[in-house]
Amino acid sequence: MTATGTVPGTADLRPASTMRVAVLRRAGDVVVEERPVPQPGPGEVVVRVSSVGVCGSDTHYYEHGRIGRFVVEEPLVLGHEAAGEVAAVGPGVSAVRVGQRVSVEPGVPDLTCPQCLAGRYNLCPDVRFFATPPIDGAFAEYVVVHAAFAHPVPDGISDDAAALLEPLSVGIWACRKGGVTAGSRVLVVGAGPIGLVSVQAALAFGATEVVVSDVNPARLALARDLGATDVVDARTASVTDLDPPPGVLLECSGHPAAIAQGIRALDRAGRAVLVGMGGDEVPLPLSVVQERELEVTGTFRYAGTWPTAIALVAAGRVDLDRLVTGTYGLDRAEDALTAGRRDPDSVKVVVHPRS
Amino acid sequence: MTATGTVPGTADLRPASTMRVAVLRRAGDVVVEERPVPQPGPGEVVVRVSSVGVCGSDTHYYEHGRIGRFVVEEPLVLGHEAAGEVAAVGPGVSAVRVGQRVSVEPGVPDLTCPQCLAGRYNLCPDVRFFATPPIDGAFAEYVVVHAAFAHPVPDGISDDAAALLEPLSVGIWACRKGGVTAGSRVLVVGAGPIGLVSVQAALAFGATEVVVSDVNPARLALARDLGATDVVDARTASVTDLDPPPGVLLECSGHPAAIAQGIRALDRAGRAVLVGMGGDEVPLPLSVVQERELEVTGTFRYAGTWPTAIALVAAGRVDLDRLVTGTYGLDRAEDALTAGRRDPDSVKVVVHPRS
Amino acid sequence: MTATGTVPGTADLRPASTMRVAVLRRAGDVVVEERPVPQPGPGEVVVRVSSVGVCGSDTHYYEHGRIGRFVVEEPLVLGHEAAGEVAAVGPGVSAVRVGQRVSVEPGVPDLTCPQCLAGRYNLCPDVRFFATPPIDGAFAEYVVVHAAFAHPVPDGISDDAAALLEPLSVGIWACRKGGVTAGSRVLVVGAGPIGLVSVQAALAFGATEVVVSDVNPARLALARDLGATDVVDARTASVTDLDPPPGVLLECSGHPAAIAQGIRALDRAGRAVLVGMGGDEVPLPLSVVQERELEVTGTFRYAGTWPTAIALVAAGRVDLDRLVTGTYGLDRAEDALTAGRRDPDSVKVVVHPRS
Amino acid sequence: MTATGTVPGTADLRPASTMRVAVLRRAGDVVVEERPVPQPGPGEVVVRVSSVGVCGSDTHYYEHGRIGRFVVEEPLVLGHEAAGEVAAVGPGVSAVRVGQRVSVEPGVPDLTCPQCLAGRYNLCPDVRFFATPPIDGAFAEYVVVHAAFAHPVPDGISDDAAALLEPLSVGIWACRKGGVTAGSRVLVVGAGPIGLVSVQAALAFGATEVVVSDVNPARLALARDLGATDVVDARTASVTDLDPPPGVLLECSGHPAAIAQGIRALDRAGRAVLVGMGGDEVPLPLSVVQERELEVTGTFRYAGTWPTAIALVAAGRVDLDRLVTGTYGLDRAEDALTAGRRDPDSVKVVVHPRS
Repeated sequence: MTATGTVPGTADLRPASTMRVAVLRRAGDVVVEERPVPQPGPGEVVVRVSSVGVCGSDTHYYEHGRIGRFVVEEPLVLGHEAAGEVAAVGPGVSAVRVGQRVSVEPGVPDLTCPQCLAGRYNLCPDVRFFATPPIDGAFAEYVVVHAAFAHPVPDGISDDAAALLEPLSVGIWACRKGGVTAGSRVLVVGAGPIGLVSVQAALAFGATEVVVSDVNPARLALARDLGATDVVDARTASVTDLDPPPGVLLECSGHPAAIAQGIRALDRAGRAVLVGMGGDEVPLPLSVVQERELEVTGTFRYAGTWPTAIALVAAGRVDLDRLVTGTYGLDRAEDALTAGRRDPDSVKVVVHPRS
Repeated sequence: MTATGTVPGTADLRPASTMRVAVLRRAGDVVVEERPVPQPGPGEVVVRVSSVGVCGSDTHYYEHGRIGRFVVEEPLVLGHEAAGEVAAVGPGVSAVRVGQRVSVEPGVPDLTCPQCLAGRYNLCPDVRFFATPPIDGAFAEYVVVHAAFAHPVPDGISDDAAALLEPLSVGIWACRKGGVTAGSRVLVVGAGPIGLVSVQAALAFGATEVVVSDVNPARLALARDLGATDVVDARTASVTDLDPPPGVLLECSGHPAAIAQGIRALDRAGRAVLVGMGGDEVPLPLSVVQERELEVTGTFRYAGTWPTAIALVAAGRVDLDRLVTGTYGLDRAEDALTAGRRDPDSVKVVVHPRS
Repeated sequence: MTATGTVPGTADLRPASTMRVAVLRRAGDVVVEERPVPQPGPGEVVVRVSSVGVCGSDTHYYEHGRIGRFVVEEPLVLGHEAAGEVAAVGPGVSAVRVGQRVSVEPGVPDLTCPQCLAGRYNLCPDVRFFATPPIDGAFAEYVVVHAAFAHPVPDGISDDAAALLEPLSVGIWACRKGGVTAGSRVLVVGAGPIGLVSVQAALAFGATEVVVSDVNPARLALARDLGATDVVDARTASVTDLDPPPGVLLECSGHPAAIAQGIRALDRAGRAVLVGMGGDEVPLPLSVVQERELEVTGTFRYAGTWPTAIALVAAGRVDLDRLVTGTYGLDRAEDALTAGRRDPDSVKVVVHPRS
Repeated sequence: MTATGTVPGTADLRPASTMRVAVLRRAGDVVVEERPVPQPGPGEVVVRVSSVGVCGSDTHYYEHGRIGRFVVEEPLVLGHEAAGEVAAVGPGVSAVRVGQRVSVEPGVPDLTCPQCLAGRYNLCPDVRFFATPPIDGAFAEYVVVHAAFAHPVPDGISDDAAALLEPLSVGIWACRKGGVTAGSRVLVVGAGPIGLVSVQAALAFGATEVVVSDVNPARLALARDLGATDVVDARTASVTDLDPPPGVLLECSGHPAAIAQGIRALDRAGRAVLVGMGGDEVPLPLSVVQERELEVTGTFRYAGTWPTAIALVAAGRVDLDRLVTGTYGLDRAEDALTAGRRDPDSVKVVVHPRS
């Protein structure tokens, strides 16, 4: 019997002593290293990673070595959209979890600060979030995470889809913040991966009109395929001409002008959810916000979204596999990080650390 | 130019001077009479009725001559689920409305009481509601209603579906009260017409589990066809065995024992929405309500549901035509009222006053 | 018996045939004229005005002849903070209302548009609002208003306080939008009349910390007298240094820099309510809104606030008389409009049209 | 340096090796024993208890040896309303906490179950709650509790008041569930300790009418003293005669007939909060709940109330010392438990374990 509680007969799941990880040493420099397999602490599990999505933030760290005040000063393992299988459990975790297929929620909060106790654990000032300096991420064969943040997924959800529950969570959170419900009219600005999961999430929340705006016709076509009821090519048309106007804006572009335009497009009593990162200060249409009594809200990650994400994918309401345009082994992690730059038709690439 | 604003060239829509109505004179006694076509007051429209659904309350008035404190003391026209075409408009209503296909919202409130001003117009103490003594209903060739309560419907919605937006509104209202959203687990108790629209509404609100309980296997089979993810035959199984437990109860049976059982089935922090009328006093499981902090809420009709109902049906998220099991002319209104008693497989019958 | 339903024995309340009004003919030009007393339509009452507060918007029209897209093109009667006594009633209004002391809610919506039916009648696109071109206001001996918008006030509320229920409503609405509740920590930016009623409203909603920021020491001293728990002299200190940070911002200054600073001062999950008008576009700290998941909301007037305002003043929770620093007859309406410019210690002046 | 992190120079706070506790051995049998001082685990603190309130549940365990499914099978230390001073800290807790005066939140949840992560930690199925078999309570010189549940209190709050933040939390939670806000009209049924803190909480939330109903005139008089705006002697009058009807019911009696009557007293769209325990099944007025669309909600303890409770008492909005009618040493714990039975004028007694 091992200290970490692996059950007899599941020896193949027991972590080896070392593993491969892809490390960002500095901007533009990723290498594969051998590292010790991490050990689970009390309440934690070790997950053997099957699939990790590449997020825009990973690419940003790769290209710039920082995002805002978060700077890569020590070698950093990227990747925070991860799925896998529980390989071992730490003290206090039931051994029945070994072998479970799980999706990893990559931010573990302190659980006891006022934000956590209020159910807003995404705002925990002491959250430890994967692939955010100095916390390592999931471009690795194994990761350790709190057992409550390793969410079991049913067989009907593929490894890649299990990894992509993370970006789907961003879309679900946006829909919750926006109050999307049956019959909502939603405008999604930006048809990148987050915009595309937001489209699907909005439909799953019951929206009957989901209009997507972008400057990339291929992305708009994909949005339509995923269920968008209409699209606006922002190069030639304006979302402010929508009639009837949308009641909810899910802003996924982060472009200051698009944010302002999206807000101006909203109906009275509308809600603008600002998902895309757009810089420190942005000029917003105050008089419109006031006269129409709009609510403008930021989003910061998500809280309590995995059960919903799992339910939606399992029920076939959201298709995440559809978004995957490329698969890479761990040795090619750097190629995965540059795929978007090389191929404009790339939507979402995933890394399979074990292949 | 007429006083009621009918436009030139739409003479065929101009109401004749008299019309046929089916009148309930007393319990069990319905006759067809000739009456003057009603004239629209300021802000009102005349609707030429194309389809009217028969509701359980119509049947109840027919069989018992009363519902609770509402007693049929004068001859009463039944029917409050109505659709048709605007035939004429009253002062202050734009003539462009003539010819519009509309669904009738059958309760017109006073608009200025505190409940109305708060957006809860369904609780207006001075509401005038179709087919509720002494207000006449829609088993008639023409009805008059406030222009804002005659909701235009697109061509894709059939006359019958336009009429059945009323019961769908009951289901939508229940889902709103219950906070049904993406990923909700919903228990619908009772698979009559209201239960069946509630199933569809819950799915349209994003519920991923919708379990229906009833004692009638045919109704349960229909519930499955309409998208219920599971059914419970209440003759042989108990909803309290559901695992995981539902988070929302939409109680559509009105049976005291079923209400209590449904509440006991709920998860912590669950919501019980009591739609089915179950008598004056009912024993409820107080300790469960307290220990799980359940919210138990009544519903009384609906407010602001038509735009949602129209959007859901137009988008194909809800299928109302599927519920219609019989169609009757006005002359056979009495047969329509007794269809449910005669045919246990009857779900929803409609009256077409002009046929 | 008159057509407008005045009761016998209340002849002194029956409007004379003409009345005096103070008319803004163009920027900087106010004259007193004799005009016919307005007649009440169906559902309306005539109010003999006892007190009218002067609002910043009145002063702005006086000085500039416009506010944004609202331009004084025809002579306009200013004043929208009015109280008085019901002098006559229109068709459909009970004669028992004659003689009631009332506070006038100055915006009457159409009651049937989607915003009205949803309880958001302040967002009605067809609202008719006093003293907003081309609708006349209350610098007059009599005004007509819908009976439901002439709110009876108890004897314990003075005429001036009854008039100032209107600005109090702005503060109440801000507190509702901001979710102020027991134990809230509130920052009020700007200690003008709206800031000062917001301070009192926040305390009445249960806030236990209400910090006020302004550049005028006399205003800050008054804020303290009205219950503010702390003040910040914005000339020498910054609200971003508050510790613990406030959870709610009630922004009443409209200064772009102050708005941004106030938002930066907020705690995680805070709410910023933008009351003060600050121009078309304003740079807002987007990254702070996102990282702390702030909700930023505009306010446009109010809905359903009079019952609360009346209850708070009647219960002594809010003191409006304290704000009155000057009283003028109708003949001196122009002096009332320039009082703030002439006297920096002026807070709120009122016009008594009958004196 | 000790393992439990006591700081140098605070030796007087360092727990002795043994302490006295008052133990309920079986119904009606309390003895004082010497026990080892408990040791703090990771994240925990040891609190030297200064005051503990006696709750109705303590009395109930004393008299009956059980409450519902919770049975005293092993000797149990009662008391869950506790305040004191941090005497030592466990691993991971800052030593600066030693010496802090704290109020103990007596239920520590597992923090990671779905209810906890959603901010509803009061519904955690694995909560460990003081004085609930088999968890010991605070009739003891020292208790151990999670550091995050030992809330620092300012000097202005007395030891007794710090202990009574627990029952105040029940009242605050009831007000939150009931949506009490500025101008609310509240009916409190039952003027025992929970009813009396609910009166004060409702006023602190801004209620302007707080009517209290009870059968005990002395309790009603005290309710008036504490700010109730009106009282109903339930022996001779009915709450259903209140006009205007209350919008919120805080039911603190647990009597089935009073619950039903209280619900019948509510206004349309009212909210009934069921605080008092009233047995397993209770007949409730279903038709009233439906026709008026009432929301009936149970409460189970509280979540996130201490910061609010502390703020309200510190600001002088709530007076808890006023409720204390008796003080007992630990040796007289049994007398404290029987005080209410012996003295009908007893409201709240406290135990001071160190005296």
